[in-house]
Amino acid sequence: MSNLTLIFPVLGVIALLYTAWKSAWVSKQEVGTERMGRIADSIADGAMAFLKAEYRVLAIFVAVVAVLLTFTADPVTSSKLVGVAFIVGAICSALAGYIGMKVATKANVRTTNAARESLGKALEVAFAGGAVMGLGVVGLGVLGLSVLLLVFGQMYGLQSGDAASVNKVITVITGFSFGASSIALFARVGGGIYTKAADVGADLVGKVEAGIPEDHPLNPATIADNVGDNVGDVAGMGADLFESYVGSIIGTMVLGAALMGGATMAGGGAWADDMNGLSAVLLPLTLASVGILTSIIGTFFVRVKEGGDPQKALNAGELISAVIMLIATYFIATFMLPESWTFAGETYASTGVFAAVIFGLIAGLGIGFVTEKYTGTGTKAVQSIVDQSVTGAATNIIAGLGVGMQSTAIPIIILCIAIMGAHHYAGLYGIAIAAVGMLSNTGIQLAVDAYGPVADNAGGIAEMANLPKEVRQRTDKLDAVGNTTAAIGKGFAIGSAALTALALFAAFMTTAGINAIDIAQPKVMSGLLLGGMLPFLFSSMAMNAVGRAAMDMIEEVRRQFKDIPELKAALAVMKRNESEDMTTWTDADRKIFDAADGKAEYAKCVKISTDASIREMILPGMIAVVSPVIIGFLGGPEMLGGLIAGVTVCGVLMAIFQSNAGGAWDNAKKMFEEGVTIKGEKHYKGSDAHKAAVVGDTVGDPFKDTSGPSLNILLKLMSVVALVIAPMIKDIPDGIFGENNAPNSDKMEIIQDGEGLIGEATKVIEMK
Amino acid sequence: MSNLTLIFPVLGVIALLYTAWKSAWVSKQEVGTERMGRIADSIADGAMAFLKAEYRVLAIFVAVVAVLLTFTADPVTSSKLVGVAFIVGAICSALAGYIGMKVATKANVRTTNAARESLGKALEVAFAGGAVMGLGVVGLGVLGLSVLLLVFGQMYGLQSGDAASVNKVITVITGFSFGASSIALFARVGGGIYTKAADVGADLVGKVEAGIPEDHPLNPATIADNVGDNVGDVAGMGADLFESYVGSIIGTMVLGAALMGGATMAGGGAWADDMNGLSAVLLPLTLASVGILTSIIGTFFVRVKEGGDPQKALNAGELISAVIMLIATYFIATFMLPESWTFAGETYASTGVFAAVIFGLIAGLGIGFVTEKYTGTGTKAVQSIVDQSVTGAATNIIAGLGVGMQSTAIPIIILCIAIMGAHHYAGLYGIAIAAVGMLSNTGIQLAVDAYGPVADNAGGIAEMANLPKEVRQRTDKLDAVGNTTAAIGKGFAIGSAALTALALFAAFMTTAGINAIDIAQPKVMSGLLLGGMLPFLFSSMAMNAVGRAAMDMIEEVRRQFKDIPELKAALAVMKRNESEDMTTWTDADRKIFDAADGKAEYAKCVKISTDASIREMILPGMIAVVSPVIIGFLGGPEMLGGLIAGVTVCGVLMAIFQSNAGGAWDNAKKMFEEGVTIKGEKHYKGSDAHKAAVVGDTVGDPFKDTSGPSLNILLKLMSVVALVIAPMIKDIPDGIFGENNAPNSDKMEIIQDGEGLIGEATKVIEMK
Repeated sequence: MSNLTLIFPVLGVIALLYTAWKSAWVSKQEVGTERMGRIADSIADGAMAFLKAEYRVLAIFVAVVAVLLTFTADPVTSSKLVGVAFIVGAICSALAGYIGMKVATKANVRTTNAARESLGKALEVAFAGGAVMGLGVVGLGVLGLSVLLLVFGQMYGLQSGDAASVNKVITVITGFSFGASSIALFARVGGGIYTKAADVGADLVGKVEAGIPEDHPLNPATIADNVGDNVGDVAGMGADLFESYVGSIIGTMVLGAALMGGATMAGGGAWADDMNGLSAVLLPLTLASVGILTSIIGTFFVRVKEGGDPQKALNAGELISAVIMLIATYFIATFMLPESWTFAGETYASTGVFAAVIFGLIAGLGIGFVTEKYTGTGTKAVQSIVDQSVTGAATNIIAGLGVGMQSTAIPIIILCIAIMGAHHYAGLYGIAIAAVGMLSNTGIQLAVDAYGPVADNAGGIAEMANLPKEVRQRTDKLDAVGNTTAAIGKGFAIGSAALTALALFAAFMTTAGINAIDIAQPKVMSGLLLGGMLPFLFSSMAMNAVGRAAMDMIEEVRRQFKDIPELKAALAVMKRNESEDMTTWTDADRKIFDAADGKAEYAKCVKISTDASIREMILPGMIAVVSPVIIGFLGGPEMLGGLIAGVTVCGVLMAIFQSNAGGAWDNAKKMFEEGVTIKGEKHYKGSDAHKAAVVGDTVGDPFKDTSGPSLNILLKLMSVVALVIAPMIKDIPDGIFGENNAPNSDKMEIIQDGEGLIGEATKVIEMK
Repeated sequence: MSNLTLIFPVLGVIALLYTAWKSAWVSKQEVGTERMGRIADSIADGAMAFLKAEYRVLAIFVAVVAVLLTFTADPVTSSKLVGVAFIVGAICSALAGYIGMKVATKANVRTTNAARESLGKALEVAFAGGAVMGLGVVGLGVLGLSVLLLVFGQMYGLQSGDAASVNKVITVITGFSFGASSIALFARVGGGIYTKAADVGADLVGKVEAGIPEDHPLNPATIADNVGDNVGDVAGMGADLFESYVGSIIGTMVLGAALMGGATMAGGGAWADDMNGLSAVLLPLTLASVGILTSIIGTFFVRVKEGGDPQKALNAGELISAVIMLIATYFIATFMLPESWTFAGETYASTGVFAAVIFGLIAGLGIGFVTEKYTGTGTKAVQSIVDQSVTGAATNIIAGLGVGMQSTAIPIIILCIAIMGAHHYAGLYGIAIAAVGMLSNTGIQLAVDAYGPVADNAGGIAEMANLPKEVRQRTDKLDAVGNTTAAIGKGFAIGSAALTALALFAAFMTTAGINAIDIAQPKVMSGLLLGGMLPFLFSSMAMNAVGRAAMDMIEEVRRQFKDIPELKAALAVMKRNESEDMTTWTDADRKIFDAADGKAEYAKCVKISTDASIREMILPGMIAVVSPVIIGFLGGPEMLGGLIAGVTVCGVLMAIFQSNAGGAWDNAKKMFEEGVTIKGEKHYKGSDAHKAAVVGDTVGDPFKDTSGPSLNILLKLMSVVALVIAPMIKDIPDGIFGENNAPNSDKMEIIQDGEGLIGEATKVIEMK
C-alpha cells in the first residue's frame, strides 16, 4: 500500500478546513434589521428542532442495526467491525446534513441583507453557504472512508496486498455506505414530507382561501414553509449526495478488489508498482480526493459584478473544475492502473477506464439536457401542458403525466449506452468507475445545488421582513438562475444512482459468490416483480403521508385564523382594503394590521410538520431496509438479486417520471405567472387556465420533492443492504427453508441470526 | 395422436353454432319506436365505419408482416407457414371483434325496448348479446387453433409423436398467437382512444359548458360517445380476451412440447397411452374445449324474475360453470397426463398440474378481490379519495395516484406466490397451465363482461329516445351490477396476462436455445431497463393521443353549437328554462327545441373520433411489434430476454396502477353523485368537492380505458414477437454485430433478412 492512503485524509481535512473558513466568513456577515434577525432565528430554530427530533429517532435505529450487524457478523470474514463502520457512516451523513443546514440557515438572512446592497454581494453570500455544504459533504466522505481504510487496513493487514485481507477490509467498509444510505433515505423522506406538508398547507389556506401573498407574516405556516426548504432541499439533498458519493466509491472498491484478485496484469502505470496491486481499489478514492481540490479551485471562479449574470458565474465555476478534473482523471487512471489486464477472459486497458468515465460524464450531461428539454420554461413539453390547461385541470394533469412518462425514454436509452459502453471498455469495474467519475466533482456541483434553497429562503425573509421591492427582485434573480445547472445536477444524480446501484449489484454478486442471476428462474422473476413493486408502494406511502400531513397543517392554519382575534381582524382588514399597498389604507386599519404582527403561532405549525414527517418517514424507510433482508433469507441470494434488479429498474423509471412531471408542472405554472399566449389568446396569473396549472403544480410537488428524489436513495440503499448481508446468505441458495443449503456452512447459526435479524427488524416496525 | 384432436374443432363449431343461435334470437327481438331504431342505426353505422377503417389499415399491416414472416422463415424448421398462421390468427381476432360489435349494436336497442317491459327480459337480451361475444371468442379460438393443428400436424407428421415434428408444428402455430395479439393491441389502443376522445369531448363541452345532460340528442358527440362504448369496451375487449386465451394455450403447447422432448415419464393416466406422449401439448386445448361446454351450461343459469337481483343471476352462471370446470380439470389432467415424470432433474405428478391450476385460480380471484377493495364504491381507498376531494382537485389527484400505486402491492405478492407455487408443483409448464386454467372459462366470463357495455348503451338510447324514466332506471340497474364480477374479471385478465407472458417467455427461451438470462450481464440489464421504459413510453403516447383527439372533438362540438342555428336556439331555450322538465316550458320554446332534433351533425364527430383513433394507434402499436425485433437482432436473444422481462414487470405494474387509479377515481365521483358524508358534512352532485372528483375521473379515463388495458396486451404481444423471431436469432448471441455468432449458421442470410425486417418495419412507421 502506498503513501497515497495517507494523502486521502489530508485532502478530506483540507475540505473541512475550507468549510470552516467559509462558514466563519458567512457568520461574520451582517444580519440586517432586528426583524430580519427574528425571522431568521425562527427558521433556524425550527430547522434545528426538526434535525434534533429526526436524529433522536434515527439514533435508535442506528443503535439497533449496529448491534444486529455486530452479532450477525459473517463467520467467514468475521467482520464484527461492520457495525462500527455503519455507525461512522451514519454519523458522517448526519453531520453533513447538520453542517449544511446550520450554514444555510445563517446564509439565508445574510443573503437577504447583502441583496439590500448588491446582486454580486448576495451571490457571494448565497454561494458561500452552498460551498460549505458541498465541501462539507465531500470532506466528510473522503475523511470518513479513508480513516476507516487506514484503521481497518492496519488491523487486517491491507498493506500485504493479500486478497483475503483486502476482501476483509472492503467488506467491513461497506457498512459505512449502509450507514450513509439509511440516514439519507430517512432524511430525504422526512424532509420531503416536511417541506411539502408546510408548502401545501401554507398555499391552500393562506394564498387560496385567505388571499394573502406567499411568505406573508400573517400566515402561521410561513415559517414552517421556510424551514421546510432547509429541511428538504438542504439537509435532505446533502444526505442524498453524501450517500451517492460514498456508495459509488465503495461499490467500485469492492469490484476493484475482485478485479485485483482475479486479473492478470501486464505492464504498469508510473505509480502502479507502488500499489501492491491495490490500484483498482484505491482509484475511486483518489479521484474523489482530487475532486476536492478541483472543486475548491472552481469556487474561486464564482463571482459576479452588479448587472452581471449569476448564471454565467456558476457555469464558469463548474466548467473550470470539470475540465481540470477530466484531465486529472486521465493521468491518474493511466499512472495508477496497470497498462492492461485480463479479467474473466476479457482484456482491458487503463485508457479504457478513462473511456468509461467519459461514458459516465456524457450520460450525465445527456440526461441533464433531456431533463431540461422536458421541464424547462418555454420548452415544447412544458408548452403542451400550458396549452392543455385551457380546457381545465384534468387535461393539464393528463398532459403532465404524459410528459413525465415520455421523458423516461431518452434517459434510459442514454443510460443503456453508458452501461454497455463503460462495460465494453472496462468491464463491470468500468460501470462503477463511470459513476465515480460523474460524482468526483460533487463538491462544486452540490455548492451550486444548495445555493438555490438559500436564495429561495433569502427571498422569503425579504418578504416577511417587509423589505423594499428591489431586494426581493435581486433574490428572485438569484433564485431563477441555476435551473439548467440544477437540471444537469439531476441528470448526474439519476445517472450516477443507476450506475452506482449496478456497481453495488455487481459487488453483491461477487460477495455472495453467485455467477449468474437467471431471470427464467421463477424465484428470480418473483424477486424482480416484488422489487419492481416497491417503488410504487414507496411512492404511494410518501404521497399519502404528504396528503395527511398537509391536512393537519390546513386545519391548524384555519384554526388560528378563526381563534386568534388579532389575525382574524387583520385578515378582515386585508379583505376590506382590496389593494395590498398599505399607504392607501386608513390609519385605523394599519393599526389593526400591525397589531397582528407576530401573533401567528408559527411554532405550532412547525411542530405539526416536524411530528408528521418524523412519524411518516419510519415505515417507508423500514420497508427499504427490511425487505432485502426478508427476501434474502427466505428466498436466497438469487431471489434477492432479482429484487434488487427490479427495484433498480422501476426505481430509476419512477424517479425520472415523477421528477420530470413535477418539474414540468412547476414551470408550466410559472409560465402563466409571466403571461402566456395560447392559440393567439393571452393568459395571465389568475385566469382559469392558470388555476388549472396551479392544480398541476400542487400534484407535482410531492412527485418532485418527496417521492421522486427518495427513489434514487431507495435503490442504492437496498443494493447496499444486499451487499452487507451477502456474506450471511451466501450458503443458502434457496433461502433458509431451501433444500440445497451448503452442508458445511455454519447454516444453523446463520439461520438463527437471520431470524433474529428479521425478528428484531419487525420489532422496530412495531415499536413505531 | 389421438382422436381428441378431431373433437376440438367440433367443440369450436358448437360454440359458433350457439353464437349463431343466440345472435338470431337477439335479432328477432323488437327494436321499439322508430326513433329508437334511428338512434341505434346511427350507433351501429358509426361502429361499423370504425371497424372498416381500422381493418383497412390493419390489413396492410397483416399483409406486410405475413410476407416478412414468410421470407425470413427460420431455416431450421423451415416454417414458411408461420405467415399463414399469422394471417389466420389475425383474421380470427378481427372476426371476434366484428361478431361482438355486430351483436352488441343490435342488442343495445333491443335491451332498451325489453326494459320498457321488464327487468328480467332486459337482462335476457343484454346477456344474450354478451354471450354471443363470449362464445364467439372461444369458438374462434379453439376452432382456429385446432384446424391449424390438424392441417400442419398432417403436413409435418405430428401423429408420429416425434419431437422434431412436434416442434415444427408448434413453432409454426405461434404465428397464430402473433396475429391475434397484434390485432388485439391495435384494437385496444384504437378503441381506447376512440371512446375516451368522444367521452371527454361530449362531457366537457356538452355537460360542463352547455349544461345538457349526458346522452342528450342535442349533443353532437353523443352518438360518437355511444359508438365509443362499443368500439372500446366490446370490440377492444373481445380482441383482448381472444389474444389472452390463444396466447396462454400456445405458450403452454410450446412448453408441453419441450417437456415431451425432455421428460422421462412414469405410469400413465387413463388416456395417456393413447396420446403418443402428446398429452402435455394437447392438455391446454382440451381444457379450453371443455370450457366451451361449461360456459354454455353456465349461460342457462343466468335468468332473473322482475324484482330479482341481476347480480345473483350473473354470479350463478359464473359459479356453476366454474365449479364444473374445476372438477373436469382434475379428471382431464389425471386422465391425460402420465402419473409422474422427471424433467430437468425434478419430478412432477399429474395432480401437481391440477395444483398449479388451483394456484392460478386462487390468484385470479385474489387479485380480483383486491381490485374491488381498491376501486369499489364505499371502500376505504375510494373513501380516502372522496375525503381528499374537499380540499380540491389537486388533493383528489394525489390521493388517486396514491391509491393506484399502493394497489400494486398485494396483487404482485399474490402473483409471486402463484408463480412459485405453480412452478413448485409442475415446473414452468405449471405456470403456463395456471394461466390456461384461469382462462378456460373465458366464454362465460366474457359474456358477463360484454353485457356491461350493452346495458350501458341501452341506457344511452333510452335517454336519447326520450323514453319514460323507469326504462332508464331499469337499464341503470342492469348497468350497476356486475361491478364485482368485472373486478374479478380484471383480476383474471391481469393475472393471466402475467402468467401467459411468463409462459411465452419460457417458450421463447426454449425456442432460442438459451439456458439462462443473467441479469448481471450489462446487455441483459440494459434490455431490462429498455423493456421497463416501454410501458411508460407507451402509456404516454396513449394519453397524449387521447388528449389530442379530445381537443379536436371539443372544437368540433363547440363549432356546431355556434354554427348550427337550430342547435344554438335550442341551447338558449334550455338555458332560459332552468328546469329540464319540458312540461313547464312555453309551447314556443318546445317548438324551437323540437326543431333542433336531429340537427346535430353526429357523423362529423364520429369521423373525428374514427380518424384520430386510427391515426394515433399506429405508432404505439408499431413500437410494440418492432422493438423486440430491433433488440433481438442488435443485441441477441439474451438482451431480448431482458427486454421482455422488463416489459413484463413494468407492464404488469403500470397496468394495475393505472386501471385501479382510474377505477377508484371513477367510483369516487359516483359516490358524490349519490351524496356522501365527509367529516359530518353532506356533499352532493354539483358541490365543489364533486367538481374536484370529476377532474379525477377525467384523468382516470385514459388510465383505465386506454393505456391500462392496452399494457396487458403489450407485454404478451412483445413476448410472442420474441417467440416468433427466436429461431432467427438463435445463432447470434450478441446480435448481428457480435463476435460470437455461430460460425455454422446461415448468419448472413439471417442478417440480411433481419435488416430487411427492420427496414420494412421502419417504412411502415414512415408510411404513417
